[in-house]
Amino acid sequence: MSDHTLTIDGVEQTVSGGTTGTELFAGRPDVVALRVDGELRDLATAVDELPAGAVIEPVTIDSPDGLAILRHSTAHVLAQAVQQVNPDAKLGIGPPITDGFYYDFDVEQPFTPEDLKAFEKVMGRIVKENQAFRRRVVTEEEARAELADQPYKLELIGLKGPGGDGEASDADVAEGASVEVGGGELTIYDNVRRGGEVAWKDLCRGPHLPSTKLIGNGFALMRSAAAYWRGSEKNPQLQRVYGTAWPSKDELKAYTERLAEAERRDHRRLGAELDLFSFPDEIGSGLPVFHPKGAMIRMEMEEYSRRRHVEAGYSFVTTPHITKAQLFQTSKHLEWYADGMYPPMHLDEARDAEGNITRQGQDYYLKPMNCPMHNLVFNSRGRSYRELPLRLFEFGTVYRYEKSGVVHGLTRARGFTQDDAHIYCTREQMKDELSSLLTFVLDLLRDYGLEEFYLELSTRDPEKSVGDEATWEEATRTLEEVATASGLELVPDPGGAAFYGPKISVQAKDAIGRTWQLSTIQLDFFEPELFELEYTAPDGSRQRPVMIHRALFGSIERFFGVLLEHYAGAFPAWLSPVQVVGVPVADVFDDYLRGVLDQLRAKGVRVELDDSDDRFGKKIRNAAKEKVPFVLIAGGEDVEAGAVSFRFRDGHQENQVPVAEAVERIVAAIANREQV
Amino acid sequence: MSDHTLTIDGVEQTVSGGTTGTELFAGRPDVVALRVDGELRDLATAVDELPAGAVIEPVTIDSPDGLAILRHSTAHVLAQAVQQVNPDAKLGIGPPITDGFYYDFDVEQPFTPEDLKAFEKVMGRIVKENQAFRRRVVTEEEARAELADQPYKLELIGLKGPGGDGEASDADVAEGASVEVGGGELTIYDNVRRGGEVAWKDLCRGPHLPSTKLIGNGFALMRSAAAYWRGSEKNPQLQRVYGTAWPSKDELKAYTERLAEAERRDHRRLGAELDLFSFPDEIGSGLPVFHPKGAMIRMEMEEYSRRRHVEAGYSFVTTPHITKAQLFQTSKHLEWYADGMYPPMHLDEARDAEGNITRQGQDYYLKPMNCPMHNLVFNSRGRSYRELPLRLFEFGTVYRYEKSGVVHGLTRARGFTQDDAHIYCTREQMKDELSSLLTFVLDLLRDYGLEEFYLELSTRDPEKSVGDEATWEEATRTLEEVATASGLELVPDPGGAAFYGPKISVQAKDAIGRTWQLSTIQLDFFEPELFELEYTAPDGSRQRPVMIHRALFGSIERFFGVLLEHYAGAFPAWLSPVQVVGVPVADVFDDYLRGVLDQLRAKGVRVELDDSDDRFGKKIRNAAKEKVPFVLIAGGEDVEAGAVSFRFRDGHQENQVPVAEAVERIVAAIANREQV
Repeated sequence: MSDHTLTIDGVEQTVSGGTTGTELFAGRPDVVALRVDGELRDLATAVDELPAGAVIEPVTIDSPDGLAILRHSTAHVLAQAVQQVNPDAKLGIGPPITDGFYYDFDVEQPFTPEDLKAFEKVMGRIVKENQAFRRRVVTEEEARAELADQPYKLELIGLKGPGGDGEASDADVAEGASVEVGGGELTIYDNVRRGGEVAWKDLCRGPHLPSTKLIGNGFALMRSAAAYWRGSEKNPQLQRVYGTAWPSKDELKAYTERLAEAERRDHRRLGAELDLFSFPDEIGSGLPVFHPKGAMIRMEMEEYSRRRHVEAGYSFVTTPHITKAQLFQTSKHLEWYADGMYPPMHLDEARDAEGNITRQGQDYYLKPMNCPMHNLVFNSRGRSYRELPLRLFEFGTVYRYEKSGVVHGLTRARGFTQDDAHIYCTREQMKDELSSLLTFVLDLLRDYGLEEFYLELSTRDPEKSVGDEATWEEATRTLEEVATASGLELVPDPGGAAFYGPKISVQAKDAIGRTWQLSTIQLDFFEPELFELEYTAPDGSRQRPVMIHRALFGSIERFFGVLLEHYAGAFPAWLSPVQVVGVPVADVFDDYLRGVLDQLRAKGVRVELDDSDDRFGKKIRNAAKEKVPFVLIAGGEDVEAGAVSFRFRDGHQENQVPVAEAVERIVAAIANREQV
Repeated sequence: MSDHTLTIDGVEQTVSGGTTGTELFAGRPDVVALRVDGELRDLATAVDELPAGAVIEPVTIDSPDGLAILRHSTAHVLAQAVQQVNPDAKLGIGPPITDGFYYDFDVEQPFTPEDLKAFEKVMGRIVKENQAFRRRVVTEEEARAELADQPYKLELIGLKGPGGDGEASDADVAEGASVEVGGGELTIYDNVRRGGEVAWKDLCRGPHLPSTKLIGNGFALMRSAAAYWRGSEKNPQLQRVYGTAWPSKDELKAYTERLAEAERRDHRRLGAELDLFSFPDEIGSGLPVFHPKGAMIRMEMEEYSRRRHVEAGYSFVTTPHITKAQLFQTSKHLEWYADGMYPPMHLDEARDAEGNITRQGQDYYLKPMNCPMHNLVFNSRGRSYRELPLRLFEFGTVYRYEKSGVVHGLTRARGFTQDDAHIYCTREQMKDELSSLLTFVLDLLRDYGLEEFYLELSTRDPEKSVGDEATWEEATRTLEEVATASGLELVPDPGGAAFYGPKISVQAKDAIGRTWQLSTIQLDFFEPELFELEYTAPDGSRQRPVMIHRALFGSIERFFGVLLEHYAGAFPAWLSPVQVVGVPVADVFDDYLRGVLDQLRAKGVRVELDDSDDRFGKKIRNAAKEKVPFVLIAGGEDVEAGAVSFRFRDGHQENQVPVAEAVERIVAAIANREQV
């Protein structure tokens, strides 16, 4: 075999034919796969199979791709274990997902927690046996013969392989993954015992770890749930087992602790505990009702955002929640986005005595987006270049028909209010506007206590978009330049754009390290075409503006949910529904404390006096449970000194603070939006 | 004939049999009819026809009832004139309406303005002829014989007279009146010439003026329009002629001037001229879009209202715009109010491969009211008497399906935002709460420049309401006591209540004397039953709260429209979208003026500098057209004196006001919500 010249881990090298990745990275036990010209391959791949001059990079187990491979391989071991226990179990698909994997099985009975324990045990044995993952290219005929007793795999082959256990994005999980099977070779992965015996096999695109041993003891099965085959309610219901896998036991432990912490911070739980909001059954899934305390927080969020937007030169508009179909035909939402919309209401039809239609009715829709209505405001009269950039802002409540399995508290609701703006500007203004917008976004998010960000650049999905390639490219390049100039990390999201243009999204890290997609900034050359938007240029000619779609919170409800989890319910004072609770050491100090609270109330502070029949200790515990930022205590010494004592949420106390100073400190903490 | 003892105009008297009302009020030419025990009767009625001890009051031509009779009689004369010109015209109905009357005719061709002129001429002759209106009781058979060539009248007889030309409330007008025909006698009114000859007749319940002469020359025909017979699109289309009638020519003139003034103030016209809002065709009828300037006014209105509500102890909530049908079944809106609701959206249905339904779908509705959702907030956890009165407030956008003919700009829209609150209190708190509420309402309305009010008390319509009579009576009595205590005039509105309880509505007079129904306060004992609302009383028992529904603006959109007409677009400074415009006498003063405006902007004032290429005079005219409250002018003398010159909307000017004083005056005018 001849030599091959390749770029390996950044260095151009010549290696002899037959050399495998395993040999190339022999000294690197953390390397579990290869990235060849951007494509993931098994570590055992020989250089002869690669194109001339290929660029080879090592994929380590702790990298995002490495973790996905680890989890995918663990999913195989799970399936192997299930079939070992229950040979009749038919295999669905088993992809890696965020932080873990799942595998679907057609079995007679739903799995019990004991079943999962048993599977874990068997998996441990398979890992210890150190079975090799061996890739094998097969013809469709061979695959059908080998998998004759696996009806779901046969169906996948029918969809044109190499599919198999497939891939699923995280968003697919809740409703069951739909399998994307592209063209190319069909491959089967064998799990091979040391003696060469094939212990198990699966139709799979790969790649996989070199062997099961690399899975180690950092895995666990989490739970099982029902899931429709290929996500469709028309198909049989399978049993899905969810698991997680990490390079080490310690990382697994850290992950389960994070999960427990996330569970403690779950905004749905905190929302009920703190009496902030609810989702009444009578109203329906995904439609939140904000109770007084939640609505107070929300009002503060909106109020501050409104003020900042006024200062930043935005013009406010208000538009209806419903519209005739015509508007969303013009905007092409009914062509590209109908699945995400509520069904129409049919109105205004008139019939004569014989039942013949004498006036055609209209279909009205709930709006899933505000942009078409803002375009009508732009178009309501002639516009001059002097008015640009024209920034139209609205707290616009939209309704999107999310499948019931996907709805999740406030972070994925069916009805929500966007802090939505559309900026109309000239092509020349576009870049400056985007830059200052990005600064504005990040500043605002910082005021809400978020500090760490990265950006994601979502680009065109040619199958699901309007417009021509050149325009998309210009828009994408502009966004990329602006994003790069911000100095933040920029992560690509190919095909993730909306149908009308590419977008930058701001991803923010919360207090326990999770990232949330919040703000989005989209550039759009197409809607201005569809709505024939025009302005008069200085030379008197009619020109088409560019349009920027942007939402900073994304949705108020979702941002509320994120903040609630970020702060674990302990909102900073300016956002707290009750900012100060007065707790007298005994009843006799009620009036004194009332006087102090009145001073605060006069300065707009939200105060409460706990003059209930509870004992002092109980009152302190109640205030702590309510996560009130400032508890003011008054006892004999306080009264004597003309003071109050502070008790903070972290439990520490500060005694006999003069009343005037106490008032000033609290007012300042609120006014400065201190993150206390 | 024997004597009769009656109370006549407040005095008990005995009069001999055969005496008529005409004789009783012989010296009073302004008396045109009688009110006998509350019922209207012809002036010619003889005392023998009246019950013993009847209370008789005179009805003067300038009283509301007198005006209605004048207009009803003028409608008869119109119909007589139309049939004189066109004997084939078939008669529909011809009721009095606010400020006038109409009559419907089935004719071959729509009427032209020239036709109306001709009818007016003939009417003048009939008036001069002084024909008497003579009432005649007939049997159904006789009526059918006499009106054999009048198919619409025959239809009305079939509906069980005495009906005839019927009665219509103002609200019916746009879509065509539906005729309410009760039981009792059938009557025909003859128009009788001096010799006794019957010139014309009509099936009619009456009463009427004694004779046509009393109509005088204070009448006019306004316009004609198509209208469906009995308001239904399934019926033939008739031609409706609208007219007005007043006791004198001068009053007619004053009325037509008021109309012209109202036309100049029409909020739809001003809304377009001042670029405040629009109703885009693409969105649909009755669904307003607020442009930046309109949304700014609206935001100020909301902001101030929000602040006042916070101060008054209201708790804010936010609820969705849609809900499952279940909620409005519980509240009985789907039983009593379905006609006012948008049609449902059908969701969440699932089917298997064979098309069989595997999960039942849900009907979702747009909410026409917020109360059921607020009840869910009340019910979201246990409530104690300590929490009452609990005042839940929301700027809640509702959608009501108004017939397209009724929709009218912002004052009658299909989508609008109520400043809606529901107050839950004990029966003991109810009266105090209602009293302080009424004070709160009137104070707030005064801040918006409205000064003159009267109250209307809408009571039960037994056909269209839930609950028992005793409860309705208690609620009605309580409202009446509170209304009476306010010292304002109280006008009854029998049967005008919502299905769940009686209401007080605040009627406000605007700058040109028109009254608008604004705030409503409803008392409701029934919804708390339907939703099983409860609180824990001091003795530990579970009790049912009383519920007060109240909206102060009514709807923001409607109130916006009313204010726009009230102020004729010249909003006081605090509500003006642009509060100050700077107009330099020449370009060289731009920078100086910019400095002054910056000082104002720093204090939150909405300022603009007119640095366009227009000449000075044009700039002043533009600011006047925009109705900007403060125009600041800067010229050489101003700069020299460190001053600016004011120009106010009324055209008067104040020169060389020191800058600091100018800033202070403007800021104070805004902060104090001065009605300038």
